[in-house]
Amino acid sequence: MQRREFAGTILALGAVAVLPRGLRGLGAAAAPRTVNGARLNAHLAALSEFGKNPQGGVSRVAYSDADKASRPYIMQLMRDAKLDVSVDAAGNIMGRRAGSDASLKPILFGSHTDSVPEGGMYDGDVGSMGAIEVAQSLAEQNITTRHPLIVVVWQNEEGGLWGTHAATAELTPAELATVSRSGKTIREGIAFLGGDPDHLERTRLTKGSLAAYLELHIEQGGTLEKEKLDIGVVEGIVGIHQWNVTIDGFQNHAGTTAMNDRHDAMLSAARFIEAVNRVVTSEPGRQVGTVGRINALPGTVNVIPGKVECTLEIRDLDAKKIDSLFAKVEAEAKKIGAMNGTTFTFAQFTNNIPAPTSPAIRAMVAASAKELGLTYKTMPSGAGHDAQDVAQICPVGMIFVPSVGGISHAPKEFSKPQDITNGANVLLNTLLKLDAA
Amino acid sequence: MQRREFAGTILALGAVAVLPRGLRGLGAAAAPRTVNGARLNAHLAALSEFGKNPQGGVSRVAYSDADKASRPYIMQLMRDAKLDVSVDAAGNIMGRRAGSDASLKPILFGSHTDSVPEGGMYDGDVGSMGAIEVAQSLAEQNITTRHPLIVVVWQNEEGGLWGTHAATAELTPAELATVSRSGKTIREGIAFLGGDPDHLERTRLTKGSLAAYLELHIEQGGTLEKEKLDIGVVEGIVGIHQWNVTIDGFQNHAGTTAMNDRHDAMLSAARFIEAVNRVVTSEPGRQVGTVGRINALPGTVNVIPGKVECTLEIRDLDAKKIDSLFAKVEAEAKKIGAMNGTTFTFAQFTNNIPAPTSPAIRAMVAASAKELGLTYKTMPSGAGHDAQDVAQICPVGMIFVPSVGGISHAPKEFSKPQDITNGANVLLNTLLKLDAA
Repeated sequence: MQRREFAGTILALGAVAVLPRGLRGLGAAAAPRTVNGARLNAHLAALSEFGKNPQGGVSRVAYSDADKASRPYIMQLMRDAKLDVSVDAAGNIMGRRAGSDASLKPILFGSHTDSVPEGGMYDGDVGSMGAIEVAQSLAEQNITTRHPLIVVVWQNEEGGLWGTHAATAELTPAELATVSRSGKTIREGIAFLGGDPDHLERTRLTKGSLAAYLELHIEQGGTLEKEKLDIGVVEGIVGIHQWNVTIDGFQNHAGTTAMNDRHDAMLSAARFIEAVNRVVTSEPGRQVGTVGRINALPGTVNVIPGKVECTLEIRDLDAKKIDSLFAKVEAEAKKIGAMNGTTFTFAQFTNNIPAPTSPAIRAMVAASAKELGLTYKTMPSGAGHDAQDVAQICPVGMIFVPSVGGISHAPKEFSKPQDITNGANVLLNTLLKLDAA
Repeated sequence: MQRREFAGTILALGAVAVLPRGLRGLGAAAAPRTVNGARLNAHLAALSEFGKNPQGGVSRVAYSDADKASRPYIMQLMRDAKLDVSVDAAGNIMGRRAGSDASLKPILFGSHTDSVPEGGMYDGDVGSMGAIEVAQSLAEQNITTRHPLIVVVWQNEEGGLWGTHAATAELTPAELATVSRSGKTIREGIAFLGGDPDHLERTRLTKGSLAAYLELHIEQGGTLEKEKLDIGVVEGIVGIHQWNVTIDGFQNHAGTTAMNDRHDAMLSAARFIEAVNRVVTSEPGRQVGTVGRINALPGTVNVIPGKVECTLEIRDLDAKKIDSLFAKVEAEAKKIGAMNGTTFTFAQFTNNIPAPTSPAIRAMVAASAKELGLTYKTMPSGAGHDAQDVAQICPVGMIFVPSVGGISHAPKEFSKPQDITNGANVLLNTLLKLDAA
């Protein structure tokens, strides 16, 4: 109820004043369109039957039988939404809809439907089912856009954005030979889903070939819920840098080696993990730093570890900030090593650059939320998304809806039906603004 | 050379004044006996052929083929030393020699010959070969002791003192079913070595049934080498308390969960490991504390660990000190958990009480070293030894010789031939003092 009152206020103020130049033609008084929220949530529930976990959520790992089994259902929903369905060479599902002006570039929107093992039924699925619902609503409401539209369900997002990567870049032989969580290589997985790994060039989305890409997604963090907001206007997807960290000390007997004679790699690892937290939290901002994996060798209760291997991950919207945080962490590691004669080695294995969203699209998302009477805030995406790859070839926008408890990648992942409907409504209206721009 | 001069000085001063009452009958002027050091070191080299590692040292894990293959060689050495050889019900090798007074209790001396995987050729072997060499020297020098003597080679010390445990206590069915490193259960291992696991009571060494137990061993630490000393007079074997530590936090997405919203079990583990080091080094003494094993769950670069499992080990000669250090560690853990909403659980799985050696035997070891012109110091054993189990049934004494670089349980484990000979000479003379006491 509070929402509706708020909406009235916003509409009374008139949204035109805050809209960017390209949108003014829309007219402030145009009533926002809405999707069929009940149908959308029913589709989500039906999709969750594929790979359902006993304890809730889904295990629908890319290239698994559950993943494959869900695809005819998804394609049927697309056909019901009057989309022309095909599977591209990379194994992504595409549903096309003609626009009124064949000279305009298509607007692409969608998400993914694969999950992590023992994951939830919202990550990716909300954006995929939301995009199909938007297409069905357009069909039902007899709206023909100027731009051609493409609804996309990307394959294997959770394994490392493989569907978008294969659609936007040339995969190396090594990449095609990468073994995914399913046990299949990327090449085998693409073929398994009906793609054509030997002719990926046929599906290539080249720079400038699309008008824009939109993606609705659950936040996966707790910010929107904690701040009691409906919508997140994503300002960008953080850069993700990941390192393998090796700490070399000297393995020795835990009973006979005096404390001050030790070169204990475990103690250095502990001081390092503490330092990562201290450095990352020592300055304002939304940067995060995590040590998620650790292994001590030989790993026995009565032996001083001679070697520890762990990971380091730093994320931020600003690549320079990541670099400066890492430099500080590295300096701390050097000091820590000097304390007990251990050495640190860092080997970076992931270097995802930050992917800012289009400021114009951000404004359209915000305006759509306002018109729908929804509260919102601008925020980064701390998680990686298909949109970050697509951002290499066209302007992108992302819409977040709240995740209860900030829980994600777990069976307890949950977003409220009304929030999901809100998100699809924002997606629909953002799409219409983009089309009109 | 320096040693010899030192020996002369000590002998000139006369050792009687410092000997305990029972030893005075020996007479200060009695020249110390010596073993055949060249033969002893040749036996050690020959023994190291069984289970030899390509990179040096041995892998002669208890109940392995290499372990079994070495035993006929060991038993032949015992027979060469005029010992009456048998394998007891627990699989320990015993070599007996009659004394002149059948009413006296036997003096037991020896060590073990099993190794850790990729271990060294000195841990246990020096004491076992040293004991046999002492017996052979007695035979060659026509010395008949008053007490009967038993040279023992205990089975499976490295897997948890199983030979001494089976000889001094009743094994539970669960203990007999314990799977050792060889893959065999303790029951299977005992049978494999020619013991009789169904009649362990036949081999039981009851409290008071022995006059004393002596064990020569490498130090396994670097103290003697660093302080340029020949012999360690072991004042006791430290108590070893071991815990499994579980830290429960909350698993969450490493990209979307703000730093101050985290219940990061890894960060708490890091602070805990640092606290263990801080607490243990915060007071004087030779106590040691170690975290040797760690596992973070789910153990992925991009997930905040929801659970960490690690070990804690504290050793000291004083059980009360172990208890007080643990109480401090536990209090630190509580504080650390409160910092970020994680909880610590401690489950103790080892509680080896400290085993002090006999002060009288310590004095005999020291006196023997002095008479031989060797430098020495009194020191705890940070490592566990067969002697700690035998200490439950009779007075025990231990003699340490230096380990180069303090390295043990590794192929690089090394003790100098002269140091090994020195140790056997101290063992021989300590035995004679004990016999005369």
